[in-house]
Amino acid sequence: MEMLRERILHEGRNLGNGILKVDGFINHQVDPMLMDRCGRELARRFKDIGATKVLTAEISGIAPAVLTAYHLNLPIVYARKSKPITMPDEVFLTLSPSHTKGRLVELIVSPEYLGQEERVLIIDDFLATGATILGLVRLAQTAGATIVGIGALIEKTFEGGRDALASLQVPIESLVQIISMEENQILFVPDQD
Amino acid sequence: MEMLRERILHEGRNLGNGILKVDGFINHQVDPMLMDRCGRELARRFKDIGATKVLTAEISGIAPAVLTAYHLNLPIVYARKSKPITMPDEVFLTLSPSHTKGRLVELIVSPEYLGQEERVLIIDDFLATGATILGLVRLAQTAGATIVGIGALIEKTFEGGRDALASLQVPIESLVQIISMEENQILFVPDQD
Repeated sequence: MEMLRERILHEGRNLGNGILKVDGFINHQVDPMLMDRCGRELARRFKDIGATKVLTAEISGIAPAVLTAYHLNLPIVYARKSKPITMPDEVFLTLSPSHTKGRLVELIVSPEYLGQEERVLIIDDFLATGATILGLVRLAQTAGATIVGIGALIEKTFEGGRDALASLQVPIESLVQIISMEENQILFVPDQD
Repeated sequence: MEMLRERILHEGRNLGNGILKVDGFINHQVDPMLMDRCGRELARRFKDIGATKVLTAEISGIAPAVLTAYHLNLPIVYARKSKPITMPDEVFLTLSPSHTKGRLVELIVSPEYLGQEERVLIIDDFLATGATILGLVRLAQTAGATIVGIGALIEKTFEGGRDALASLQVPIESLVQIISMEENQILFVPDQD
């Protein structure tokens, strides 16, 4: 997706160790017009998979997931990283390693909003090692739901997430694919649109 | 706003102690179509205040703030509650009591995205005691920015937030106003649309 690739090239920063800073338009400051275009494109790619719910993880997955869900006319659930007092005692909970926090974080979903009849489309900002998305997969599977697709704004192909998710045998879509961040560069898969 | 009031009446739950559970359409599961309508209405009310940026707090402020910002064609910044490794060492930080967590939480904004030239519209899901919003006000004031408006989806008038914010002398808008949650009821200000 040309628009997103251009923003990353102009405003993204390679902080080393595979960390891509996109705080100016995705992860701290958000460009809602860009998120709408990204959500529209993800919705287009997943329009025929029969999803009934979009699932993401707080925090930075929320904006792209809400706008993807908007264009699919579906509800979206975000897994919480701490349990608010409004949540029932019995929850679905898994642990997931956080790339940017350097520790395990909890991912928690209330059984009220994830049932065994659901067909779940997982959306996140990044597909890197796939660890967060695999955490969401475990939550959905624990609920008895069916995963029907996985989408991300930015894939770092060199971190292997797509392979980690391959056994799910569902469509995996990312809007831009970065193949290398070595030597302070950001190299994309060419001609992907 | 009739649509939001109806959802609260049908799906909201009064958990006592002034806690309103809206996890089915705002705070855990999100109805993006409802958020779009709410964002559109907040944008309409604030279209003439000359805002240059929308500011909110993670987590539950993100969805309404992104959609308000979308309809105002503005960037939105969400204050983080923990500092990611992508953020610079020098940040704007304040402490704010969390109603639903029962402890102080940090609110952190990078100086990269909040400067003294900004005219800031603060958007959050709830206006209750005003504590979170006052935290955002302190962050913006520390940055030298100007607060030009405050908007919320749901105001609990009995918790006094509007009075706590009055000295700012900026327009304060909420889409529904709850005047009492005593005796397990949810009573709204009538005829407000």
